[in-house]
Formats: sequence, C-alpha cells, structure tokens
Amino acid sequence: MFEINWRPDKTYPMPLHLQIVGYIKEKITLNEWSIGTKLPSQRTLAKLFAVNRSTIIAAMDELAAEGIIQGNTGGGTKIINNTWNLMNKNYNWNGYISSGNHQPNHMIIQQINEAESDPEMIRMGSCEPASELIPQEKIQGILKKLSVSSQPLGYEEPRGSLFLRKEICNYLKTIGIVANPSSILITSGALQGLQLISLGLLHANSIVYLEKPSYLYSLRTFQSFGMQLLGIPFEETGINIKKLSERHKSKQGSILFTIPTFHNPTGTVMPLEKRKELIHFCEKEGLPIIEDDVYREIWFEDSPPPPLKALDNNGLVLYVGGISKNLSPGLRIGWIVGPEQVIARLSDIKMQSDYGSSSLSQNVAAELFASGLYKEHNEILRKKVKVRRDTALTALNEHFNEIATWNIPKGGYFIWLKLNYPISMYQLFVKALNRKVLIHPGDLYEFRSNQHIRISYSNTTLAEISQGIKILSELVLEQLQ
Amino acid sequence: MFEINWRPDKTYPMPLHLQIVGYIKEKITLNEWSIGTKLPSQRTLAKLFAVNRSTIIAAMDELAAEGIIQGNTGGGTKIINNTWNLMNKNYNWNGYISSGNHQPNHMIIQQINEAESDPEMIRMGSCEPASELIPQEKIQGILKKLSVSSQPLGYEEPRGSLFLRKEICNYLKTIGIVANPSSILITSGALQGLQLISLGLLHANSIVYLEKPSYLYSLRTFQSFGMQLLGIPFEETGINIKKLSERHKSKQGSILFTIPTFHNPTGTVMPLEKRKELIHFCEKEGLPIIEDDVYREIWFEDSPPPPLKALDNNGLVLYVGGISKNLSPGLRIGWIVGPEQVIARLSDIKMQSDYGSSSLSQNVAAELFASGLYKEHNEILRKKVKVRRDTALTALNEHFNEIATWNIPKGGYFIWLKLNYPISMYQLFVKALNRKVLIHPGDLYEFRSNQHIRISYSNTTLAEISQGIKILSELVLEQLQ
Repeated sequence: MFEINWRPDKTYPMPLHLQIVGYIKEKITLNEWSIGTKLPSQRTLAKLFAVNRSTIIAAMDELAAEGIIQGNTGGGTKIINNTWNLMNKNYNWNGYISSGNHQPNHMIIQQINEAESDPEMIRMGSCEPASELIPQEKIQGILKKLSVSSQPLGYEEPRGSLFLRKEICNYLKTIGIVANPSSILITSGALQGLQLISLGLLHANSIVYLEKPSYLYSLRTFQSFGMQLLGIPFEETGINIKKLSERHKSKQGSILFTIPTFHNPTGTVMPLEKRKELIHFCEKEGLPIIEDDVYREIWFEDSPPPPLKALDNNGLVLYVGGISKNLSPGLRIGWIVGPEQVIARLSDIKMQSDYGSSSLSQNVAAELFASGLYKEHNEILRKKVKVRRDTALTALNEHFNEIATWNIPKGGYFIWLKLNYPISMYQLFVKALNRKVLIHPGDLYEFRSNQHIRISYSNTTLAEISQGIKILSELVLEQLQ
Repeated sequence: MFEINWRPDKTYPMPLHLQIVGYIKEKITLNEWSIGTKLPSQRTLAKLFAVNRSTIIAAMDELAAEGIIQGNTGGGTKIINNTWNLMNKNYNWNGYISSGNHQPNHMIIQQINEAESDPEMIRMGSCEPASELIPQEKIQGILKKLSVSSQPLGYEEPRGSLFLRKEICNYLKTIGIVANPSSILITSGALQGLQLISLGLLHANSIVYLEKPSYLYSLRTFQSFGMQLLGIPFEETGINIKKLSERHKSKQGSILFTIPTFHNPTGTVMPLEKRKELIHFCEKEGLPIIEDDVYREIWFEDSPPPPLKALDNNGLVLYVGGISKNLSPGLRIGWIVGPEQVIARLSDIKMQSDYGSSSLSQNVAAELFASGLYKEHNEILRKKVKVRRDTALTALNEHFNEIATWNIPKGGYFIWLKLNYPISMYQLFVKALNRKVLIHPGDLYEFRSNQHIRISYSNTTLAEISQGIKILSELVLEQLQ
C-alpha cells in the first residue's frame, strides 16, 4: 500500500513535478519503496498528490529518464533502480547512506531545517533568537577591538580557552554553582555536549530517563548509539519522582536527562523543594543527572530557582549550558560542568571529534562575559522577550480560546498548546508550511502526541506572531470539521 | 605483573609523588590495574619509578588517604577502591568512563595534547602552524570590517554558509575540482569530516583500507564505531594498488582512506599516473575513497598533481580539505566535497552533532577567500615553510647522518625519519619530553613501529628546530648504546 501523506507545495519555487520526483526518490532512498514495487496508476497518483495528471506524466518521464522507473506495456510502472545521477555521481552510495551508524533526523525536523531558510516563513517552530534579540552592536564592538595576536587563531587547550572557562566560572557563581576551570569543557553549543556524553559515558543499552514530553525526543543523539529513552510521566511541578523511582530498576549505565528550568516544551519550572527532593533521590539511587539549562537567563518576572548543579554536593550532575539561546547561536558556544575526571574524558572525545571549538568564537564569548556585556544584554533581552510572549498570549486568547488550553510561560521561548481534540499533526504541519507558517508539532516531543503544538515566539516579529497564530487557528478549525 | 614504562618528570611543575598518584589512578581508571591487585613493595616501586623510597611513601600515603589502597600487616598493599574525590565528587563515574562508547585517545596523544600548552616545549610533534605562519594582520583587518548585521551571529543552513561554500567552489576550481555549493558541507576542521563519515556512511565491521603507515592510525575515530582498519603496504609512489587489490575481498561497506598529496607521515606525493590508476581500480571495484588533502597548499617548488577528486567522474571520492594547516587552526573550518545525496546525509549528522560550525568563523573564512587574501597568504607561507624545512634538513645532516635516513619533503610540515636500528620509541618519547622536546613516535602511525619518528618543523622557531634535532640525536645515541 502506498501511503502518501505529502503534497507538493504550489508556493515553493520548484516545479510541482520535480517536487514529486524528489519525494519519490526520497522514498526509495529511505528504502520505504523498494526495487520491484509497482507504482499506482497515473490517475491514482494525481489524486494522491492532488495535482493534474499532466504533472504526474512529467514526473514519470523524469524518473524514467533517470532510469529509476520503467513503464510496462502489460500495465503498471515499476521501480527498477535506486541509483541516479544527481550531479556527476553514477556511484551508488545508498547502501552506505542507509547502513551508516547514526540515525537520520526525524523527517519533520529535516523538513524544518530546510524550511528555516525561507525568508517568507513565519518561524514559530525552532527557538532561535530573532536577529533583533542578538546584541549585534556589542559583538561588532568586540570584533573591532579583539586582538588576534596569537590565541584566537591557534588551537586551544583540550578543555577550551582558559580565558573563557575562567569567565564562565565567574558567571556560574552568580547562579550558585561553584566550579573551577578544570571542571568545565567548552563545547560547540549545548547540543554537542549531549553527543559527547553519549559517546564518552554511555554505552549501547544504557537507559536515559527523561521527562515525557521532552525536547530530547526530538533528537536522535542517544538512540543512534544504542541507548534507550525511557519516558517518565510529568506533573505540574516537573518529573514525577515516584514514577521515576518505580521505573528505575537497572542501574548499569543509566542516567537521567532533565530540564528543570523552563522545561522544553512545557515551560515548567521545577520548584526548589522538588529540586532538592530529586537530587536526594538520585544520590540515594546513584543515578547521575544531565541537567539541560539553556533557557535559564530568559525569565520575565523572577529569576528561577538555582540549578540542580548548585544543590549537588556529590558530583552527580553534568550541567549543560550555553549562549545560543540568549545571546548568539552563530558563535556555537556551550559548556559542560562536571567532575574533573568526567570532564577529562569528555574533552578527550571532543579532541577526537573536532579538535576543539572555534578559538575565535571562544575569545569573543570570553570578552562578552569579561566586559559585563553578557549581563547587560540579558537584562534587555528579558524585556524584549516578555513583549513577545504577551503578544502570543493575546493572540491565543483571541483565536484559540474555544479550541485549546495552554500554559503561561514564566520564561523561555515557547508555549505548549493543548488542543481540546486530537487531529493529524502531520497534516497540520504540512498545511501550515504551505501557508508559510512553521510550527513544531507535539509529536516531536512525545511519541504519537496528536493534541499538542509547541509555539515559539522568539524568531518572529510581533505582527508575525499574531498573524501566525491566526492562520494556525484557521487550519486547526478546518481539520476539526 | 606490573609493567611500568613511565617515570615521573622531575622538570614538571608537580611534586613527584603526586605525579605517581596520578599515574596509578589512571591505571586503575583504565582498568589495567583492578581492585584486589597487590602492589609491589615500596622498594620495587621506587626502582620502577626511579625515585627515592620517601617519594613512594608519600604517594602511598596519599592513595591510602583517598581510600584507594590499603596497607596490610600481613605484608603488601592492595588496591581496594576505584572511586576517589578529585573535587567535590564522591560519585563514582568510573563505570561510565570506562564503558562509554568512544575509545579514549592513544595515551601518548593524550600526553602530547597536555604537553602542547607548555610554553618551554620545542614542539616537533603535531603539525600546527606556528603563530608567525598565521596571517594575523590579514584576519585582524577582516574582523575590523566584518559586518555582523545578521548572518555571522545566527545559525547557518545545514550545509554551512552559502557565501563560504560558493567561495570554496571557486577555490576548488583552481585545483581542478568542479563542484557546486550543494555538494559541499562545511565542517569544524577536516577531522570532524572523518567523524561524520564514520557516523553517517559506515557501520560496525566496515573495513577502512589505508596506507601503512598512515596518520589515520593515530586516530580512534573509526575504531570507536566498530570499523576495522586494514593497512595496505606502501611503496615509493604511494599505496601499493596490487596489494590493495589482493586484500579487497568483502565489498560490503568498505572504503579506502588515502592521503595522496604530502602523505602523512611519509611526505610522499602520488604521481598523476598512479592517481589515474587508483581511481580506475576503485571504479572497477566499486570501492569509494576518502581523500584527505589538507596539506595541498604547502608545496615548495612545484604544485602537486590534481587531487583524486579532480579525476573522479563517478562520484566515488569524498574529498576532505580545510584551512587549519595552512591558514588558521583556530577558525576550525574544513569541508567535505561529495555527491549531493551523501552531503545531504552528512549535513544531517552534522546538524545532530553540533548544529553547524561557528558562523563567525565561516564568515571570516569566506572573506579570506573572497578578498584574495587566501591565495596571497599561501604564497608567502610556502616560502616561510621552505626555510623551516631546509633548516631541519641541515640539522639532520649534521646530527643524524650516521644513525638514520629520511625523505626530503616537497611540501607539508614533516619529515619521516628512519633510524638505522630499532629502539624503544616510548622511552625516547618520554626522555625527549623530559628535555622539553615533543615528538611523534612512529608507532602512532604504524603499529609497533620502533624505528621511525615524525619530525614536524611547523611549530618551532628555526633555532628550536636545530636545537631539538640535536637533543634528539643525543637521546637516540644514548639508547643505541
């Protein structure tokens, strides 16, 4: 059976038949449609793709010319080949591509990554800061003055620039974490920190406990190396510790991944008392923790409780932070804080992965901290983002009041919208994409969730937020009918 | 049996007994010495480490205080624990560290990585360009003028900055490679390219054919993911194709890794005819190629023959290049060129690894190409490096004439020295380190090679090259006696 839940996009700057060719090639590459498969009739295909039959004929001609399909006088068209020339490549790489170690990204994420660069898109999907949230002038000033006499152009130490690590120590003190430079590893964004942990500390069959829903479900980092994600139910204050306790059996190589502050996607902030309780539980069980804390600085009224790492007296917590969310994603600067022996191990893997992060970026980041611009910028940022959140909430009140409920985030970049009734999220995603609205459907964060949407207000204009939410409500209503 | 082929370094700014404590802890962490193991007597340890007995007593006291060993009145001291406090960490991470997926670096490489930052070291080990070889003023000029209005501070497209990819296309044309921006992925240095290939295209049990000796032996990238390295004998003109043909049986997922230009470590340049022959062989066999070409621009008299990629009409070659060797390692900019479908796969893995390389670095690199400074700089670089090579050759003629032979490199940063008689390379490495000379012993490049040393002339002053080679000859002579 052919399941085709995708349609070419008429607004996309590529002929419809070539979009269809691309789709079919992808299906074959992904081995979803194998050699020998008989394609449906042209009439059926036209219906499935919602295009004219002439478009299907053009697509079939193209695929036949590339030697991928063959028409049969006895009726029907078959897939006869899975190699094709895209440039000058007759060589068949498909075996390599499909058997490579690492899993591909979720198809929707790949589509999102592609669509991100469309300038007409209303980007309510990923949580990238809009350029007006990035302190461009401050950074420009630093670049003008930066002395590149030696360090910023050569390799750094295995753990990263000492200048930057010292500055991060000073910063960490302000949020309650006592660390020395040897217990910090500079990474290329917080995401790389997770990859290094998965490569350096976990093994196939390690269990990664996580909140359900969780941002981690949208990544393939852990699963690609054979680890198992085990979702723990979520309650108003965060992860349900009792349930975690019930599920936590095998201790060999397991770890807890948690986002206690502005939890992604629900926005939840774990209260101080519960943080203490969680640390206590993990200490008792000998269960180490990965604490993802990348949204901490983006709070609106009150600063959040101290991170788990600040309450950790036993070196149980690996703290993952960075500046991509609140300052500049393009610098690609993040950090892991943990026991020295763990940091030594992870820095060795980092050296083997990319021989360290950009020295230039590290030095610019260090100057941002050292000059006080980091702190100053965060204060401005909070005010700007609060206006965005309020605009989103106003639009939700106007358009979603009857059909959904949502949280009021106290910080971070997103709202977790819960529809009153389930709908096909993939359909909504594609329809929204066609109307140039990019969202993250909830099933990226919770397997088969068909009632949630994560709406980000960080990378749009105020007008776009209102407009995007309005369009989205229309599409949801359409699907509910 | 205790094999201790390491001794504390009297010149190192750390008390001898703490160096010994560190060494023993490392042995336990690496599970080379397990719990329950009985340590030799203090007298024997003193002899093995070549220190006074009082130093051993101090080291044992420290280890006992940390609860790692326990003295026994019935005689002997045992390892009783493998957890210890390094900072505030009572938690035992050792299980995680030792069972993590990725292999640690070669112990010597870890030592080298640490020693690199010692300012008194004569660095004839790694092939990092000295700061005088980096065009600091040119880059400073670019930073002053760089407009960070938007792109350099936000995320880039999955394949990297289009501006940079276009510039790389133009550059590639000058060395005979026709590529379009979609067939290029920007990586954080060439090394990351290899990791992405191992994660994205190969699987456990894939066979990686490589020259013997090869730089690749010094990395753990492929082995960590279960791939098997299979060394092919080397001849004057490069890899022995006949031998490759004999060994190449299993075709499933195998790949050839080769450095045809200024081969690392031998400096060999594969002649054009042989390049054609190799491409022909691989086409016939359907064996894809990773071509590592990072030293290409550093030639002295004549530019080398075109890369294999320029001769590849079938999309068989994945070309790995970068600017770390000839321009600035700190920018961490490299690239992979290959068929679009392969690049799409690798860029997806890259997005999952670190969400792209530093945009700031990418934009600086693009400006270097666009302004013509890249080309201009390479011309200056070649002249400077040639003087270094000549200085090294003069010193070798003076000090090694009787005890070794070597190649005269036509480009690149290193000389492959072959001693007339085998010696313990590890001993030589440690002794040289004690005299502040850092070398790469040949066994990093060829398993159990005890007759070769790779001498790099890129990261020393001219006086240091002569001095370092002189010291080295003394140490070799000492060991030959």
